[in-house]
Amino acid sequence: MVADVSRRAGRPRRDPWEIPANASPHRRLRLTPPGPFRLESGAVLPELEIACETWGEPDPDGGNTILIAPALSADAHAAGRGGGGESAVDGFGAGSGAGREGLGWWDPMIGPGKAFDTDRFQVVCMSLLGGCGGTTGPSSLNPDTGRAYGPDFPAITVGDIVRASRAGLHELGVRRLRGISGGSLGGMQAFEWAAAFPDEVDAVVAVASTPGLSAQGIGWNWIARSAITGDPAWCGGRYAEEGTRPVHGLATARMVGHLTYLSAPGMEAKFGRRLQERRDFAGDLQAADFQVESYLVHQAAKFNRRFDANAYLYLSYALTRFDLAERHGGGDLEAAAERFRCRTLLLSFSSDWLYPSGDSRRLAAALEARRKSVVHHEIDTTYGHDSFLLEAGRMTPLVRGFLGPEEIDVP
Amino acid sequence: MVADVSRRAGRPRRDPWEIPANASPHRRLRLTPPGPFRLESGAVLPELEIACETWGEPDPDGGNTILIAPALSADAHAAGRGGGGESAVDGFGAGSGAGREGLGWWDPMIGPGKAFDTDRFQVVCMSLLGGCGGTTGPSSLNPDTGRAYGPDFPAITVGDIVRASRAGLHELGVRRLRGISGGSLGGMQAFEWAAAFPDEVDAVVAVASTPGLSAQGIGWNWIARSAITGDPAWCGGRYAEEGTRPVHGLATARMVGHLTYLSAPGMEAKFGRRLQERRDFAGDLQAADFQVESYLVHQAAKFNRRFDANAYLYLSYALTRFDLAERHGGGDLEAAAERFRCRTLLLSFSSDWLYPSGDSRRLAAALEARRKSVVHHEIDTTYGHDSFLLEAGRMTPLVRGFLGPEEIDVP
Repeated sequence: MVADVSRRAGRPRRDPWEIPANASPHRRLRLTPPGPFRLESGAVLPELEIACETWGEPDPDGGNTILIAPALSADAHAAGRGGGGESAVDGFGAGSGAGREGLGWWDPMIGPGKAFDTDRFQVVCMSLLGGCGGTTGPSSLNPDTGRAYGPDFPAITVGDIVRASRAGLHELGVRRLRGISGGSLGGMQAFEWAAAFPDEVDAVVAVASTPGLSAQGIGWNWIARSAITGDPAWCGGRYAEEGTRPVHGLATARMVGHLTYLSAPGMEAKFGRRLQERRDFAGDLQAADFQVESYLVHQAAKFNRRFDANAYLYLSYALTRFDLAERHGGGDLEAAAERFRCRTLLLSFSSDWLYPSGDSRRLAAALEARRKSVVHHEIDTTYGHDSFLLEAGRMTPLVRGFLGPEEIDVP
Repeated sequence: MVADVSRRAGRPRRDPWEIPANASPHRRLRLTPPGPFRLESGAVLPELEIACETWGEPDPDGGNTILIAPALSADAHAAGRGGGGESAVDGFGAGSGAGREGLGWWDPMIGPGKAFDTDRFQVVCMSLLGGCGGTTGPSSLNPDTGRAYGPDFPAITVGDIVRASRAGLHELGVRRLRGISGGSLGGMQAFEWAAAFPDEVDAVVAVASTPGLSAQGIGWNWIARSAITGDPAWCGGRYAEEGTRPVHGLATARMVGHLTYLSAPGMEAKFGRRLQERRDFAGDLQAADFQVESYLVHQAAKFNRRFDANAYLYLSYALTRFDLAERHGGGDLEAAAERFRCRTLLLSFSSDWLYPSGDSRRLAAALEARRKSVVHHEIDTTYGHDSFLLEAGRMTPLVRGFLGPEEIDVP
């Protein structure tokens, strides 16, 4: 079922969907695919609800649809102005306009004349299964118990996330994607889609992503999750029932994540060893004297206001365990690549050490070895992993060129 | 005062100071410099006690003394076999013998025929002021109150640490150092010594260190300290009185630190995406399925058994705030370098991203600009910051060559 919730009762004064003159239609939908939703683990969710936003008009058969797959901390609000006044991906996008005035997290990439051109395509973005962006996740009500799932929510995989999105697309009448794109965990979803449903996607644009996170990346995610579960206020995941929140744990998780999204040279330029206010140190061991310390505190507090600790756990767990080669090639990346039938564009960033260019090169080599159509561009920048949110200017011509005018004719 | 505590009453069966046939004398001393100890902040410690170990014999005037300055988690037990059965620097030294059977944390570097040759030099190492290795720190008893200092211990600086070590050396009758060496925070102490007491040191050997930590390094240290102070069991620093310990916070701090000491390629080779035991994932979000996850858990638990959370805070605070240029050059590194009168050897490691080679290059350039004697070697290795504990084989000829036979003649 599709419910248009673009204008919700109780929504106040300013119309959150006020659309600039040149913008394409922007809808907010609630999708409820029928029946229970079975996970790869065998666990079953009695019902699935998906928060979805769309931009642009679909062709009659939806064949011009591009799916935008969110990263861990993002949601369906990928473009346009939202109601909240705070972006889904705070701390990101300082140079791109995202994070200001409730603009979507990939706003510079989605719209008329942009990389994902809403004059040509219907662009769709859905909040992640297991997250806290309005799609079923650990903070949703379990209809079997009438309480929030909390830690009873079953572990999910990137495969589950993709199948939930696919069920949502079916509600929209979309059976085949012109393209799928996303950064980081979003790119993993694109790879999974290409390998699991090769006949249902024409093009993959994966940005700052990997077919399998490195040992170091696994380590960072482990530390982030441990910080949350080690916080006594996590209460075994039942903090909502206990009327508390693991704010310290989630703050630590976010700060660890945040540092891994930035590059050392980028941080040196942005912060260096500059002090926040005082010229000298007060000797208070808990004072955030350095600008970088104060910045981390601020980002952690912002994140705590909008994100759910259990959602962080479930999504971090899923992305850490994603392994394209294991899932689709018995451990062999080339065998997994063999399943792709789409064209693939891989974008990576020179200073991204969390999802390094080498990971994209490795996948490109595997696809090439199997004579698949693949292009890999490394963009030279100091923004680190954050580049996928900040380098719209450099990505746009590459993505537009890849999606190309000759690709616009719907068969 | 100097107390020889090499053979302590109550110490059991096996003599912890059992010395192999070819070893030089190894002493454990407790030094108690007279009078109160005034810190740079103006705060005063009523008394100062220093845990010290020495190897080799001093010249009559102690002029052949080399001071080894510990890193954050190390202590006076730099070489030889200790009583504890666990190295001061656990998790380190898997390839070097350190961490096994209570060997000192820099054992491969200190001894007859080694880099710091105890046939030639008296080598001295003292536990850090503010730490938990037997030298006065936050877990020491405050003689004014009869209770442990805890959070009442005043904030300290690298300058304070150096002056405490200097007071300890005076107890040993040493007024001038043949050399000072250390890795990481140990290297900072060497720089501070060279700038603060230029007439009292002939040679600096600073390994994997920096004249001032990068923005990224400041960020990691902030996260580590926040994890500790955010743990409710920290109890505002009075956990000892409360009969608890901030084990989760210290575990997080250690895991963050540990990852920053390793390099991504090193981790990829050591762990990759290999699973610990099961072939598949059990779907337990708290299970350490990956080898790297299990490794981090193990290291954190080990660290919790031997290290004090407040000591971590004080030392992390001190090392983060160390800035050679600010302290001795009004913000200008060359002006600070002007103060050096010693010869300087800087060793850095290609894969060390926490104390990157660029930092050593920057200091070397400043010293050269002021016509100081400086040599910088970058060693190519994948061990990251840990290299200073693991690359004894490569460091030894460089250090021996630098200290050189012509330098052995005491004036």
